[in-house]
Amino acid sequence: MGVIHRQSASAGGLRWDGVALEGYEAARATSKQVLIGPREGADRFAVRYFEIAPGGASALDEHAHDHGVVVLTGRGRVRLGDAWHEIRAGDAVYVAPDEVHQFENTDAAPLGFLCVVAAKRPA
Amino acid sequence: MGVIHRQSASAGGLRWDGVALEGYEAARATSKQVLIGPREGADRFAVRYFEIAPGGASALDEHAHDHGVVVLTGRGRVRLGDAWHEIRAGDAVYVAPDEVHQFENTDAAPLGFLCVVAAKRPA
Repeated sequence: MGVIHRQSASAGGLRWDGVALEGYEAARATSKQVLIGPREGADRFAVRYFEIAPGGASALDEHAHDHGVVVLTGRGRVRLGDAWHEIRAGDAVYVAPDEVHQFENTDAAPLGFLCVVAAKRPA
Repeated sequence: MGVIHRQSASAGGLRWDGVALEGYEAARATSKQVLIGPREGADRFAVRYFEIAPGGASALDEHAHDHGVVVLTGRGRVRLGDAWHEIRAGDAVYVAPDEVHQFENTDAAPLGFLCVVAAKRPA
């Protein structure tokens, strides 16, 4: 059966009704919300929302699974391999398998993005 | 290698640099843009953006694969099974396998949403 999580009013960053706010290991000033995943019944993919506070960054990461990212709010930059690229709300980013990557908030407001992964993924 | 599609300025709905605007079969006044898919190198999932003009609707659909939807712009309603639910920008919707579903624009502006699917999916 389908599930709807409505975006709720929030003074800070983005929140959704019925979705828990989680800290995110190994990252500075970053939170995670799983919008669509096993709890909703999805066993093929997951849609997560990450938010990075001003001055924060995601962990420098490299792994065999890929990411589909769409920025929902804010501005920042993403490292793909050795190069940094500016990103802002609306931009779509594909992070390829085994690609070194990191997201950084370079602005005074939260940087928030959806990050899609396959449910069954190599580490 | 990673890919970035920047959201581009557009007088009407949302567009991205380097992403083709496609019509969408079997739907009224609806367009499709594949933001992340085979062309970007993604072979585990795809992130598509659908946009429905005022007065339009997606096809009434039912199939074995599931959808992860996040509304980016506008207002409308979604049918899940026999019930209709109002949705608007920011809301997340999980459409379960084999669930009858349809999206309809009930507003005067475009209704646009991301729709995630697994790359290898049952029909």
